[in-house]
Amino acid sequence: MIHYKLLFMHQPQGRDPDRLLPAEPVTRAIARDLYDRVADAPIVSPHGHVPIGWLADDIPFADPTALFVTHDHYVTRLLHASGIDLARLGVGGRAVDPRAAWRLFAEHWHLFAGTASGYWIDEELSQVLGIDERLAPATADAVYDRVADAIARPEWRPRALFERFGIEVLATTDDPLDDLSRHTALSGQLPGRVLPTFRPDRYVDPDAEGFVQNVERLLASSSSPSTFGRYLDALTERRRYFIEHGAVSADHGVEEPFTVDLDAAAAEQLFQTVISGRAGAAERRLFRGHMLFQMARMSVDDGLVMTLHAGVLRNHSSRTHLEYGADSGHDIPVPVDFTRGLRPLLEAFGLASGFHLVLFAIDESVYSREIAPLAGFYPSVFIGAPWWFLDAPDAIGRFRSAVTETAGFSRGSGFIDDTRAFLSIPVRHDTARRADSAFLARLVAEGRIQLDDAERIADDLVGPLPRRVFKL
Amino acid sequence: MIHYKLLFMHQPQGRDPDRLLPAEPVTRAIARDLYDRVADAPIVSPHGHVPIGWLADDIPFADPTALFVTHDHYVTRLLHASGIDLARLGVGGRAVDPRAAWRLFAEHWHLFAGTASGYWIDEELSQVLGIDERLAPATADAVYDRVADAIARPEWRPRALFERFGIEVLATTDDPLDDLSRHTALSGQLPGRVLPTFRPDRYVDPDAEGFVQNVERLLASSSSPSTFGRYLDALTERRRYFIEHGAVSADHGVEEPFTVDLDAAAAEQLFQTVISGRAGAAERRLFRGHMLFQMARMSVDDGLVMTLHAGVLRNHSSRTHLEYGADSGHDIPVPVDFTRGLRPLLEAFGLASGFHLVLFAIDESVYSREIAPLAGFYPSVFIGAPWWFLDAPDAIGRFRSAVTETAGFSRGSGFIDDTRAFLSIPVRHDTARRADSAFLARLVAEGRIQLDDAERIADDLVGPLPRRVFKL
Amino acid sequence: MIHYKLLFMHQPQGRDPDRLLPAEPVTRAIARDLYDRVADAPIVSPHGHVPIGWLADDIPFADPTALFVTHDHYVTRLLHASGIDLARLGVGGRAVDPRAAWRLFAEHWHLFAGTASGYWIDEELSQVLGIDERLAPATADAVYDRVADAIARPEWRPRALFERFGIEVLATTDDPLDDLSRHTALSGQLPGRVLPTFRPDRYVDPDAEGFVQNVERLLASSSSPSTFGRYLDALTERRRYFIEHGAVSADHGVEEPFTVDLDAAAAEQLFQTVISGRAGAAERRLFRGHMLFQMARMSVDDGLVMTLHAGVLRNHSSRTHLEYGADSGHDIPVPVDFTRGLRPLLEAFGLASGFHLVLFAIDESVYSREIAPLAGFYPSVFIGAPWWFLDAPDAIGRFRSAVTETAGFSRGSGFIDDTRAFLSIPVRHDTARRADSAFLARLVAEGRIQLDDAERIADDLVGPLPRRVFKL
Repeated sequence: MIHYKLLFMHQPQGRDPDRLLPAEPVTRAIARDLYDRVADAPIVSPHGHVPIGWLADDIPFADPTALFVTHDHYVTRLLHASGIDLARLGVGGRAVDPRAAWRLFAEHWHLFAGTASGYWIDEELSQVLGIDERLAPATADAVYDRVADAIARPEWRPRALFERFGIEVLATTDDPLDDLSRHTALSGQLPGRVLPTFRPDRYVDPDAEGFVQNVERLLASSSSPSTFGRYLDALTERRRYFIEHGAVSADHGVEEPFTVDLDAAAAEQLFQTVISGRAGAAERRLFRGHMLFQMARMSVDDGLVMTLHAGVLRNHSSRTHLEYGADSGHDIPVPVDFTRGLRPLLEAFGLASGFHLVLFAIDESVYSREIAPLAGFYPSVFIGAPWWFLDAPDAIGRFRSAVTETAGFSRGSGFIDDTRAFLSIPVRHDTARRADSAFLARLVAEGRIQLDDAERIADDLVGPLPRRVFKL
Repeated sequence: MIHYKLLFMHQPQGRDPDRLLPAEPVTRAIARDLYDRVADAPIVSPHGHVPIGWLADDIPFADPTALFVTHDHYVTRLLHASGIDLARLGVGGRAVDPRAAWRLFAEHWHLFAGTASGYWIDEELSQVLGIDERLAPATADAVYDRVADAIARPEWRPRALFERFGIEVLATTDDPLDDLSRHTALSGQLPGRVLPTFRPDRYVDPDAEGFVQNVERLLASSSSPSTFGRYLDALTERRRYFIEHGAVSADHGVEEPFTVDLDAAAAEQLFQTVISGRAGAAERRLFRGHMLFQMARMSVDDGLVMTLHAGVLRNHSSRTHLEYGADSGHDIPVPVDFTRGLRPLLEAFGLASGFHLVLFAIDESVYSREIAPLAGFYPSVFIGAPWWFLDAPDAIGRFRSAVTETAGFSRGSGFIDDTRAFLSIPVRHDTARRADSAFLARLVAEGRIQLDDAERIADDLVGPLPRRVFKL
Repeated sequence: MIHYKLLFMHQPQGRDPDRLLPAEPVTRAIARDLYDRVADAPIVSPHGHVPIGWLADDIPFADPTALFVTHDHYVTRLLHASGIDLARLGVGGRAVDPRAAWRLFAEHWHLFAGTASGYWIDEELSQVLGIDERLAPATADAVYDRVADAIARPEWRPRALFERFGIEVLATTDDPLDDLSRHTALSGQLPGRVLPTFRPDRYVDPDAEGFVQNVERLLASSSSPSTFGRYLDALTERRRYFIEHGAVSADHGVEEPFTVDLDAAAAEQLFQTVISGRAGAAERRLFRGHMLFQMARMSVDDGLVMTLHAGVLRNHSSRTHLEYGADSGHDIPVPVDFTRGLRPLLEAFGLASGFHLVLFAIDESVYSREIAPLAGFYPSVFIGAPWWFLDAPDAIGRFRSAVTETAGFSRGSGFIDDTRAFLSIPVRHDTARRADSAFLARLVAEGRIQLDDAERIADDLVGPLPRRVFKL
């Protein structure tokens, strides 16, 4: 018997070509063949957070720390948990010496072993940037210099990478009042499409910062009195504007997937209370629930795919929120109840022709209990790919296991990278392709599906499926 | 090294003899030996939904579509989700050309790859009916004809199949006012027993369709005033009647496993409010909760095993409910809380001698958190086999992993097929036998149990265990 | 191909040296090497329930039944579920013939196949006590005699075992009013440290038995009026006393992880209501929630690590509680919500320097949804090892899979045996070491971490990590 250490001898930098595939040899061989079919397929990324400016202006990435550390809340949160002040990483706009912050990161790099972020960054350094050295305290400067070197060169600017990564579609996430001029300017400049996404949370959630002012800005184009009807019209109009500029979806982030239908008079009265700033917690919740309902109605009318990211309590730590702003790593999941919470919405629109509603959650208990059963019945409901903390190899495996026996593969959304970390885009898609190949290979090895079915499904997952779900 | 594709060459139709067994060779070899011990054991099916008329009248199955599509809500729901109108599949009594509906099914057959239903139907076609062709759009007619051919022959009538399948016991699910004459007529006509099951939901849940009329019919045999005491007596009497006709269990389907004890006066008053039709939601819930409590009391008294199927919101889509009726695929699970919900019931009856309460749920989070701990302490509580959406190979594996370390194997119910799809009965039991062999084999391969223990347990699970739990 | 049965031929007693390691050969080889590194590492046990008297007095264990059956509620609960009266096992102080109770245990030993307890007891008998016979009805007396023989000898007394087990630190769990004299007496008598743990539940939970009297005893040292301030001072003082006697942590068991901040006046008023015995359920809950908050404040002040065991409904069966007392196997888990429940506590103290809060739950759904995200952000929060019903090989694997991709390995607590079953201590730590080696080996085999990372992590988990988390 060959000792296993020999198996690792030829991969001094550890990028096993079979990484993420199951160890069992027959299953691995099947998985490798499936993966090989899809490894180089174009990237379809219908939901993410890449700032449009990066592509519009094609400015080089600032420095390795800005690229890998400061803006990646997966990274800063774990460093923070380990006792590193967020300020020392440049979070919240704090000025830092990027090399000093990078050294700090390298000193704590071992904390990331086994995490999704650790895997992605390893891949970005070795596979995307071609850097041989493993990150470690001793190699911090060397790796920093190699990254800095690369990103200073034209072939590492965002547009060049967009092309090299083989991106077919990339969706950004945008404010409803954005004029989308940068999207327009990009048109025809890239080999793939860059689409805006309508994200109205700050205009429909009374608890959002600046909600009342946001609504006022939304209604500012007219001098007639602020009514609920005008408010809905203004949202409808902005959605139309987004659609004209290429948008295919509207995205909604909520703590609770609660929906409610209200008659016109009740909605009007509630709207007035809410924009007066005098609404209590129950009224604000009711308004949120009714607006989610209205957003579904608008999606039925205008065809924008509705994506729902539910079950995260934002800014759990008020102090870090105050000091460093939103999206600094202090958002924590809560349980969700889609079955009851979405019922009013689905009673009204669940069977509507052409309506697409994609459900994302971080509460794994809903995968088999609620999401797969809902998507396995309602033509409008699709199973969102594992999201946020669940966007990782083991979690993807648990997800596939939890939903497939009920809903198969066709009711899924396809992989969603949901990221602003540009260099991680190909890596995350590669991770999903490997994880899905691993899952499919096990089904084949266990005689549950045929090899040709697995091949067809693997092909479908990376392109045709997300194009169908997101109407691309 | 032999390329894995060679492994599949000898199974052109894909029914790998080791299907569902783990790929790792040592574990697979152990699993295969365990499976071989139990593969041909008689089928004990203590809970299911086969219409008694099929066996009483022994009429041939109508056509392939009626047999495989129209009445299988696992199948129709996924087709519906994929945009096919339920009417085109004959759901809700709609008239359809069965061959046209079958072609529609065949065109969409690829959607079922990886689902429990896909696996079962593959097995039914190839293993039960002996059809070599794989279902596909191109083979739709050929497969239809072969199925139609088979079911027209006497050896494919329900009674012949009952014998061929080696069914030792088959329980139906019946209305409390059924006279059970067809069960009586069947007595001695088959090599195994066919038992009725008492299912009183429509007589104890004020939200059930026709509840007040159902209670009136229940009480109709006497002209004395409708009191709670007479109502309980009437239910007790019907249970006695069922027991006399062979019933061993009473089955209860609830959205919420809520129970409550009430004193006689409060119960009487509540009963009057409820049958007056004026009860509010809270009162109706209280009544349901008290009736579940009363049903447990009756089980303690008369010995009927109490099975509880909890946590499904029925008829989530009112429109399809209205158009196609109940059980058309629009039932969606919700979270359950057995620990607190059943506490009043268990405080009163949990230690009662001879009381058997079998808990089923679709919320996987309760397996390790509630069901295994409850069944690992209360002599009356048994762990229901994975149910409905969880009745599938991966889900069975998760279930075994979640409950076994706390409660072992002896506190389980044994496999429950819970089906009206007659041809799927042997297939579902075979699936469970393979999945359990796979789980036991891993415990052996990992040195956690001895091989002889695994053999004893495998033998127990398929016969002695369900006979003990269901008092057969 | 060698038949797998040959693989078992050399282990007639079934203690496979690779037990609990994955069957796949490459993964197993890696796991074995990782396990070999840590198999003999000293035991760090920062939370458990060994009675201090055992070590202080070094009295021999009474008899095999007392050692393995009567006081192990994992064992008695499953026997009880199988119809054996707890009285026949000596629970609740009932007098029994130990040999008769042992025979009863042996007769039902097969029930434990596949359970955590079954595995541990197998290990204790074969690996710790060196008994070759497998427990079975036929060997009941022989095994009893061999155990009785062993524990009568000096080398099997608690202190000798403490040394032989290589225990570096063992924490007991103690009443706040304990004078800790026995801990003091032990100082320097053993090769490792024995530390007390402050467990104030009975003094801070108005629903605890004897709560009012407990508070009175706590305040008895002074004649000044009972105020909330004095009550807090008394608790602070007892914590100081514990710290002086070596305590490093305070442990809190709650049904619900609910916390609330109150101003001084409201807290004072609530305290008076609660100690008057007139508080309603809502007030008692509020008091519990505020005291958990106060306990965190004290931990911030005095540095005691705060461990929180949440989500168990104690004494679910009032009758067995009445007859046999607490901790007799009738405690049943419930769902928990850490994200919202702990928010007030974490808003106040989550970022406090030096504060350590370790979260334990039996609700697996919180692993990936709440605990890993909280511990991956708050420097104060650590992920408690799988607890109680989840303290078993498969559950440990699920736990690692659920938390690692978000929080890595560094945010865990290290293994906690949480036991009073003295002989099981080395066995439980060995189980955790094997399970963690298995998990790490899979990550290596799947190319997700480097072998040297896995080695470093394996080393860290068994010593340095728990020493850091528990400030040892």
